[in-house]
Amino acid sequence: MELVPGNTLITATPDEGRALAVKLARLTVKATQPDAEVRQRLRLAYAEDHHSLIAIAQVVATEYATIAAANNHWR
Amino acid sequence: MELVPGNTLITATPDEGRALAVKLARLTVKATQPDAEVRQRLRLAYAEDHHSLIAIAQVVATEYATIAAANNHWR
Amino acid sequence: MELVPGNTLITATPDEGRALAVKLARLTVKATQPDAEVRQRLRLAYAEDHHSLIAIAQVVATEYATIAAANNHWR
Amino acid sequence: MELVPGNTLITATPDEGRALAVKLARLTVKATQPDAEVRQRLRLAYAEDHHSLIAIAQVVATEYATIAAANNHWR
Amino acid sequence: MELVPGNTLITATPDEGRALAVKLARLTVKATQPDAEVRQRLRLAYAEDHHSLIAIAQVVATEYATIAAANNHWR
Amino acid sequence: MELVPGNTLITATPDEGRALAVKLARLTVKATQPDAEVRQRLRLAYAEDHHSLIAIAQVVATEYATIAAANNHWR
Repeated sequence: MELVPGNTLITATPDEGRALAVKLARLTVKATQPDAEVRQRLRLAYAEDHHSLIAIAQVVATEYATIAAANNHWR
Repeated sequence: MELVPGNTLITATPDEGRALAVKLARLTVKATQPDAEVRQRLRLAYAEDHHSLIAIAQVVATEYATIAAANNHWR
Repeated sequence: MELVPGNTLITATPDEGRALAVKLARLTVKATQPDAEVRQRLRLAYAEDHHSLIAIAQVVATEYATIAAANNHWR
Repeated sequence: MELVPGNTLITATPDEGRALAVKLARLTVKATQPDAEVRQRLRLAYAEDHHSLIAIAQVVATEYATIAAANNHWR
Repeated sequence: MELVPGNTLITATPDEGRALAVKLARLTVKATQPDAEVRQRLRLAYAEDHHSLIAIAQVVATEYATIAAANNHWR
Repeated sequence: MELVPGNTLITATPDEGRALAVKLARLTVKATQPDAEVRQRLRLAYAEDHHSLIAIAQVVATEYATIAAANNHWR
């Protein structure tokens, strides 16, 4: 399966980079749990769980650091 | 939805960069849980939970590292 | 509210930088939970909870990485 | 045991780098718990546990930062 | 109180840098919980708790990244 | 006690660097819990606990980032 959409970390803008960070995080979860039905069930659980929402925000922040560096911070 | 307010990581000052870090973290949560009512309920929970407050501080610290690098640490 | 005391990441020494890291972490908590009474109650809880103390140390370590980089590691 | 497949961090593409990040994370688990039967049992547990899936995504994000840097972000 | 022993991140060797990382982590805990008796009680708890030992290792790893960078990795 | 085996972060290969990352993490645990018998007991616990295995993988990923940087990613 594709783990990096478009197979590049380069994006036109900081906002597109952010969307990529979110996608990268989701694709790791998909690679670890390929069953779509299970993922859907878990999604309902974590979307109501503030510990999980914060932990997801941590993952996205970490992915974004890499993407921002790849794009020379869009300077 | 917009994930990076103003679509830039560049801010005039370290303090504005910090405010952006806080916003980025909140927008990730919003993207993951789009229902404002649910978010409001969870906010009441985590604001009284010291584990969550510390975890949020960790996310903000991670976002801030990226923003500070983007701004060459405002030197 | 002010999120970065003095609105700068530059400090004279590594020790002052460390004090700033601690303050940044506390100010994020304050921004998320503005009620001083609630924060005082939570402080009593986390100061007796070794999981929380370690988690706070993690946040401070992360903030310090940014501050040290901003100061070219005080070399 | 081999901890880095191919003994290199260099990959042809961002997507291959991502696959390497996933493998590195799995090999650390294997080095810590060499019993394949135990790992299989634990895998069934964490694949149904959203906390674990998010924590795995965090590890992969961290590994990927290193691999992306090694590859000059495939620019 | 002193947060960075010797007020410098520069050490002669990687091993001394590592010892500094451990001390930095401990001093953050001390700054957050200044009561020596409470810290001693908590130390007994976390030294028998594998979750805490791993979390402490995470903090030390993060501190060490900063110290290693400050010392240009002792190359 | 020795915290960095060989007192250097430089290794010949990415794979040797990875082995060093694992050792650094273990030595931090040893420094925090010097009693070998307690560590052996805790090891039996965490090797069967998927939360702990993932947390260990996170520590190793963080250590490896530092070691890889020290070795200029073995490019």
